Amino acid sequence: MEEVSQILTQQGENINAIDTVWVAICAALIFQMEGGFAILEAGFIRAKNTMSIIAKVLIDVMFGGLAFYAVGFGIAYGASNGWFAFGTGILDEDLGLGLTVSNKLFWFIQLGFAMAAISIVSGAIAERMKVWAYMIFVIIFCAVLYPVVANWVWNPGGWLANMGFNDFAGSAAVHAMGGFAALAAAIVLGPRLGKYGEDGSITPIPGHNLPMAAVGAFILWFGWFGFNPGSTLAAVGNWELIGTVATNTFLASAAGGCATMIYTKVVYKLVDITMVINGVLAGLVAITAGCNVVGPNSAIIIGLIAGILVDIAVVVFDRLKVDDPVGAIAVHGINGLWGTLAVGLFATESGLLFTGSAAQLSIQAIGVLTIATFSFVLTYAILSIVKATMGIRVSREEELAGTDAVEYGVEAYSTFE
Amino acid sequence: MEEVSQILTQQGENINAIDTVWVAICAALIFQMEGGFAILEAGFIRAKNTMSIIAKVLIDVMFGGLAFYAVGFGIAYGASNGWFAFGTGILDEDLGLGLTVSNKLFWFIQLGFAMAAISIVSGAIAERMKVWAYMIFVIIFCAVLYPVVANWVWNPGGWLANMGFNDFAGSAAVHAMGGFAALAAAIVLGPRLGKYGEDGSITPIPGHNLPMAAVGAFILWFGWFGFNPGSTLAAVGNWELIGTVATNTFLASAAGGCATMIYTKVVYKLVDITMVINGVLAGLVAITAGCNVVGPNSAIIIGLIAGILVDIAVVVFDRLKVDDPVGAIAVHGINGLWGTLAVGLFATESGLLFTGSAAQLSIQAIGVLTIATFSFVLTYAILSIVKATMGIRVSREEELAGTDAVEYGVEAYSTFE
Amino acid sequence: MEEVSQILTQQGENINAIDTVWVAICAALIFQMEGGFAILEAGFIRAKNTMSIIAKVLIDVMFGGLAFYAVGFGIAYGASNGWFAFGTGILDEDLGLGLTVSNKLFWFIQLGFAMAAISIVSGAIAERMKVWAYMIFVIIFCAVLYPVVANWVWNPGGWLANMGFNDFAGSAAVHAMGGFAALAAAIVLGPRLGKYGEDGSITPIPGHNLPMAAVGAFILWFGWFGFNPGSTLAAVGNWELIGTVATNTFLASAAGGCATMIYTKVVYKLVDITMVINGVLAGLVAITAGCNVVGPNSAIIIGLIAGILVDIAVVVFDRLKVDDPVGAIAVHGINGLWGTLAVGLFATESGLLFTGSAAQLSIQAIGVLTIATFSFVLTYAILSIVKATMGIRVSREEELAGTDAVEYGVEAYSTFE
Repeated sequence: MEEVSQILTQQGENINAIDTVWVAICAALIFQMEGGFAILEAGFIRAKNTMSIIAKVLIDVMFGGLAFYAVGFGIAYGASNGWFAFGTGILDEDLGLGLTVSNKLFWFIQLGFAMAAISIVSGAIAERMKVWAYMIFVIIFCAVLYPVVANWVWNPGGWLANMGFNDFAGSAAVHAMGGFAALAAAIVLGPRLGKYGEDGSITPIPGHNLPMAAVGAFILWFGWFGFNPGSTLAAVGNWELIGTVATNTFLASAAGGCATMIYTKVVYKLVDITMVINGVLAGLVAITAGCNVVGPNSAIIIGLIAGILVDIAVVVFDRLKVDDPVGAIAVHGINGLWGTLAVGLFATESGLLFTGSAAQLSIQAIGVLTIATFSFVLTYAILSIVKATMGIRVSREEELAGTDAVEYGVEAYSTFE
Repeated sequence: MEEVSQILTQQGENINAIDTVWVAICAALIFQMEGGFAILEAGFIRAKNTMSIIAKVLIDVMFGGLAFYAVGFGIAYGASNGWFAFGTGILDEDLGLGLTVSNKLFWFIQLGFAMAAISIVSGAIAERMKVWAYMIFVIIFCAVLYPVVANWVWNPGGWLANMGFNDFAGSAAVHAMGGFAALAAAIVLGPRLGKYGEDGSITPIPGHNLPMAAVGAFILWFGWFGFNPGSTLAAVGNWELIGTVATNTFLASAAGGCATMIYTKVVYKLVDITMVINGVLAGLVAITAGCNVVGPNSAIIIGLIAGILVDIAVVVFDRLKVDDPVGAIAVHGINGLWGTLAVGLFATESGLLFTGSAAQLSIQAIGVLTIATFSFVLTYAILSIVKATMGIRVSREEELAGTDAVEYGVEAYSTFE
Repeated sequence: MEEVSQILTQQGENINAIDTVWVAICAALIFQMEGGFAILEAGFIRAKNTMSIIAKVLIDVMFGGLAFYAVGFGIAYGASNGWFAFGTGILDEDLGLGLTVSNKLFWFIQLGFAMAAISIVSGAIAERMKVWAYMIFVIIFCAVLYPVVANWVWNPGGWLANMGFNDFAGSAAVHAMGGFAALAAAIVLGPRLGKYGEDGSITPIPGHNLPMAAVGAFILWFGWFGFNPGSTLAAVGNWELIGTVATNTFLASAAGGCATMIYTKVVYKLVDITMVINGVLAGLVAITAGCNVVGPNSAIIIGLIAGILVDIAVVVFDRLKVDDPVGAIAVHGINGLWGTLAVGLFATESGLLFTGSAAQLSIQAIGVLTIATFSFVLTYAILSIVKATMGIRVSREEELAGTDAVEYGVEAYSTFE
């Protein structure tokens, strides 16, 4: 009997170890997505602002990460009143999540989601935002804004969690959250000089290094296989689920890219290869909410629609003169919205198309619309205050010269002699 | 006793979880190799075709991946008649493989092997193949050609599996398969304009961005530590084997690079650094079949030979006017062949050099020659049909202007202002 | 009872499997840092020496790796007399380390640390060292120098291990070791032509591709989440420790980058974005020794100090006319020193600031100063001999033309037509 007791103790220890390996590696994969964000965004803009955008992603990680450590995590995962928590952070003894990994490791994987959310914003404000104004926003976003939404969605006491809102890895809490903050930021900032003519003309500003952007996309794609499957937060008890999530994640991303490839060929006569990259990302964003509850064929359909939505959204925002240099709003905002709603349509056990009931769809709509509105309104307000006080946009001269030279005194590329 | 029964149930659950963590992470590492293929190939060709080759790798992943989902997997892993299967894909209840991971996760890791095989082809056809013709071939290859070979080699009912053919992670089924398809494709397509003069002269066409190619090689190298060790398909029961495989994989790759470095210094007086990169990859390809059954010193010898073979093969194919812009045929085809045969020489328990028996070597030769012939003949036939009907090659004007501008309307690099 | 015995056997097998998954994946993450070293260093130097530096990192991996296999590992992990061992390598039956993974897998993860140490050196000698002279040093370093230090620190019989020296993942054994070898190498080699004027002027030589350097930094950052947590060498029994290590690793790196950002803004008026990258790396180096024994707030303080130290050190070495093109000495040498000492200050259970006792600090100082001196003196001696015999530095003409053209006959970038 003593032997049995020792076996049980060791078995419990093994479960902790298995889940720790799983979460630690997935967290590392999510973390390395930041490199992907940095160079995807850098490749899609002009060379003269390259190091500035990389600096902004570094700010997301460094300042955003410390803010999420010092304040944000406690707000997200302390004891929730449904809307908010006053937790003391990673020292909390038990977060009520039934975790089999340490609070610190849980913190580290959650950090990845917070950084992804803010990194979405860094794309939309490229080539024109003051670095210190951006830093202030990053700190507020990672300390308060994102954690509040994470509280709603993933804290066991959050109001959306209690409604049955299904946002597995964050189409709403990460991507719509980041995407609608990006929308507000792009509006408050205004478009880049020369982007929109007074006669209604739109001047494309092509990215300076598209292969680098492609590398960034492949890095993000890789990381998504930590982002989505890692959201199980444990491997023990989830071995079938992990396979389902990985497969759905792949299928939606492939379908998103295929849809964009065909759509742009049909509508524009030429395949738009930068949009194909965005189509893959759109598929990834869209499947993120429901990868745990939809079947593989549904994942393909969700991805196909995402791949077309992103093409249309890019054009619409451009017509509205919302200048988003990397398409972050279309990829993350619109498809975060779509992916969250898609759960209500395609979830095998609760979706409208499988059950005839719109109950889940209603919950999904309430959740994602609240999150998008919350993100948009608060970002708009905060950045308007920053704009009115310290200023938010580099001067005309600085923008023409390039922010790399002005804010950092560097050139991304010196002569390739 | 009830406690013992619960312990047993939990222990089984833990085994599933451990193996799922292992396979899910290895599959992600294999998946990210696609980014490596994309930029290795892009760096080794001219700037004007950069985005076209990245698009082709995206097609491998997106269209090839969906084809492997819809059709290919069932052919590969359904109930085999020795040569073929009519499986219904990832829904099959039991594949007879003794899997401890879900069918979906098994599908996801197998997807990585299929994509690697087709991505080998994308290198050899660079700078001159029509995108839509390529897409058709990708779909056929991933839906039928590769799955048939996977059936022979890895399906428990496959004829090569039943003969005792040892191709652990696919020197034959992935690399020779892809490499000989690449050879057929390069022949059907013909060389790039200006590559071979009428007087027999050969004009080198240097890659436009060798550091990017090097990054691609490092990404592939990293991924190979999922590719080979992950082919165990389970960690439980394989802990010693995983260490053996990882060590052999490293040793052969290092030896391959060393051999190329010394060979090119001795023969050409200057180290050919792009060939050193190919030497590393050649070592990786060559150890892929036997990494589970050879000792570490054998792994080094296999790698050394691979590193020299690749140098010779590149020259031979060039003399034969087979234009392979990235050396895919030499790296994957020739060293896939070599690596598969090497098992018959160096396997500790069955190799000719250790046992004096040529039985394993014969099986290896039969297997890899059948696969190479199958791949070459069918690819040649399919592409000849495509050539005769829709056409396979961009026009002379398009080739001179660059496929990026013509097929996609983009420049990979705009002015670095 | 038989059932219990079977359960125990299987439980032991599961422990092996869990730890194997953990170490195999962490080893792969560490391995891929070599790609990060290669392009970080390449991006920080001039285009004309790009492929040469990538070749040197390949030499680290290929020749260094084989030297560590053939000789080094046995010296490091054979039965130690306190200073040295004459082990027969990965065939040794039991290394006395209580390993739950195979010796081969342990070898593979240790290889990553050896390669990291030598890759630090490759940065400091950039743009002017002969490739064959470098190769000789790499082989000696990986076969003997580094293994001796690893023996002291991590072999259970090593004299520093027995003193209670805490160098968890190698601030001393890897980073100070590499960094002080880099210092000696930079001194023996002398500065690049044109770097220091006779009038005492210092000419900055900016890196040619800073986005590529940033990608390299992100790759290193990612790999550090294998480097530090993977140094547990087992997940079973360490699940809390793994979370602690990952969190400390992140916090110190973020703090290092923040500190550099603010320091350079305050002192130079402009944020120095290349130094911010080095600040992040400095934080990572500094936390590497103590990530297992300090609290999260201590990790932040260690990182903040590292981020400032690196800025000062770069300036000091420049004033001393020690030309280190990528800042390797400041990042790895100085912060390896700092991080090792920091354990003596901040360790929760033995640090001066928490216990009032300087005992641990003394041990840390003895250890790291011995290692730094050993590394500096032997590297200086070896390279002086190489200099006096075969020569160590490319000719003036070669340096002006660029080592890529002269030693390899290539251009990293051909015209981007």
